[in-house]
Amino acid sequence: MKATKKYNFYAGPAILPESVLHQAASAVTNFDNMGLSILEISHRSPNFTKVMQDAQLLAKELTGAGDEFEALFLTGGASSQFFMTAMNLLNTDETAAYINTGTWSTKAIKEAKLFGNIVLAASSEDDGYRYIPKQLSNLGNAKYLHYTSNNTIYGTQYHQLPDTTLPLIGDLSSDIFSRPVDLNRHAVIYAGAQKNMGPAGTTLVLVRKDMLGRVKHQIPTLLDYRTHINKGSMFNTPPVYAVYVSMLTMRWVAQQGGPEAMASHNSKKAAMLYKEIDNNPLFTGYARKEDRSKMNVTFNINDETLENAFVEACSEAGIVGIKGHRSVGGFRASIYNAMPVEGVEKLVDVMQTFSKQHGA
Amino acid sequence: MKATKKYNFYAGPAILPESVLHQAASAVTNFDNMGLSILEISHRSPNFTKVMQDAQLLAKELTGAGDEFEALFLTGGASSQFFMTAMNLLNTDETAAYINTGTWSTKAIKEAKLFGNIVLAASSEDDGYRYIPKQLSNLGNAKYLHYTSNNTIYGTQYHQLPDTTLPLIGDLSSDIFSRPVDLNRHAVIYAGAQKNMGPAGTTLVLVRKDMLGRVKHQIPTLLDYRTHINKGSMFNTPPVYAVYVSMLTMRWVAQQGGPEAMASHNSKKAAMLYKEIDNNPLFTGYARKEDRSKMNVTFNINDETLENAFVEACSEAGIVGIKGHRSVGGFRASIYNAMPVEGVEKLVDVMQTFSKQHGA
Repeated sequence: MKATKKYNFYAGPAILPESVLHQAASAVTNFDNMGLSILEISHRSPNFTKVMQDAQLLAKELTGAGDEFEALFLTGGASSQFFMTAMNLLNTDETAAYINTGTWSTKAIKEAKLFGNIVLAASSEDDGYRYIPKQLSNLGNAKYLHYTSNNTIYGTQYHQLPDTTLPLIGDLSSDIFSRPVDLNRHAVIYAGAQKNMGPAGTTLVLVRKDMLGRVKHQIPTLLDYRTHINKGSMFNTPPVYAVYVSMLTMRWVAQQGGPEAMASHNSKKAAMLYKEIDNNPLFTGYARKEDRSKMNVTFNINDETLENAFVEACSEAGIVGIKGHRSVGGFRASIYNAMPVEGVEKLVDVMQTFSKQHGA
Repeated sequence: MKATKKYNFYAGPAILPESVLHQAASAVTNFDNMGLSILEISHRSPNFTKVMQDAQLLAKELTGAGDEFEALFLTGGASSQFFMTAMNLLNTDETAAYINTGTWSTKAIKEAKLFGNIVLAASSEDDGYRYIPKQLSNLGNAKYLHYTSNNTIYGTQYHQLPDTTLPLIGDLSSDIFSRPVDLNRHAVIYAGAQKNMGPAGTTLVLVRKDMLGRVKHQIPTLLDYRTHINKGSMFNTPPVYAVYVSMLTMRWVAQQGGPEAMASHNSKKAAMLYKEIDNNPLFTGYARKEDRSKMNVTFNINDETLENAFVEACSEAGIVGIKGHRSVGGFRASIYNAMPVEGVEKLVDVMQTFSKQHGA
């Protein structure tokens, strides 16, 4: 299928399973044997209505969501959920608590402040967001606690949920379906598709319905979760193709054995890569060991003058998307669900060869 | 490419050019010879950055937009622009005028009321939205006048712009790029992609920059046009694939000769179909003749008991998407830019044969 074999370590949009891409391409010419492209059929046609229903069912199945939750496929990315969560759940005179573990948390806090009283429960800003803060404060009268499950830029991840009895709002953009989630602790989880769920263009929101309808201010129709709940996520034209490819990807996750199987697959890949980082004298991991992400492995090269040469060595081996985010520098290997073990082996191989060549 | 030849008359998502679908499918397996799918590459990669820039340039070129305008590819559909236009341009104590020509105008009015004082300049509700009202009132101190350029459900269309010196906000969702537009009369035009521009999943907003930054209320970052203007429509991850396919479709429009050539092509198709409706004793057009749409041709069958039989006859000829919207009934033939003359000929042929068979 591909012109040359590439190992795709992009942070997002990111690698998707080969079998999904194959079906996704086929649907662009002839979807469901309709003799039409999926790009040009009505979203009210039975063929697409079924795709949306399957996507909603799969999202609920893979997260263990009960009937009290609704699965919505919206647009606008996680960035839109930063304000939509607060807009739908918080009154101006109410308080919500937020944990700041990096860039995305910071943005979520900024938007929520437009709708209520926002308190900081914890932050890891003091050490360049290298860790997940465990001690929480200011939870007193908060309506919910918001956290970012995995931090793509810094390479940290929650390995257990924040220690509170408050309903959680979780930004799971970069680790949804990569491991089981305890949805019963949550009021809302949301995730931009473009890491573990599909291509850019849709955002999954799983919302506990009894949390809604309690705010006094008016909400534009399209920003009110209830609008989408009442119409099965089809109030207006949904992002048809992004939902379709997400549905295919969720089906692939289910076929692989679901989030439990993904967790074991992802742990194996992460262990291989962190082992190499820790053993190779040329490299140093960025995040604290106990909070390391199994999705985004961040590391630096000890001799920064070798940075470009390492990127070049990766490139020659077919490895793309390895450069770190500009706010951390160094390297970032994103090893989402669809990354095969073979891709990580290739990267480890390049690291070892490069290390030998440069006398480490 | 297709299993069987279909004539796609869906109202939206709708027919796209064959050559666009061919390129769109190819990019899902190997985009730009990168050895990667367009669904799995970073939106910050030079390959996609170029797609976004090309899309912005084409949108401006095809509408004749000068430097005072910015072209944004957002999400959320035209339905999100119903509130975003008012949210970005109107203060609570200011007035805006709206023309009600049907379902979509009604929704735009409802959302705008959350942000300012909305007055009705005209309405065609009194006659089932069969016409475009020409007399306007209440324009006195309005900041802008909002209109819906083409009404997909009722099959009416503005053939000249509303008679006012006020800046216009135009919902061009269903007729953008189908004919030239006088952008200089507008503050904003917006269009959901899924008719004449591409697949569902992105919305074009052309906004005159000097209209912004004048409102007193706070706007969530993602809903502020200035956020997207400042970042070249890449503040957060855009809907990559929908923008790509829209870019291909706009390029196709340019290759066909641009909106002028499209207007002539569309007038020819519409004339053929309306001629048959007017001559065939079995059918009656829905909209008033002078306001008939060249995009969505609405008509009823005089003997309603034949409705299903006509749909069946169309279906046998490979014609899909011909059923009218539930609020109007009858039939609707959507003949957007990508519909070839051949498709309209086929429909006329079926109408004539059906008419003979049923003794008209």
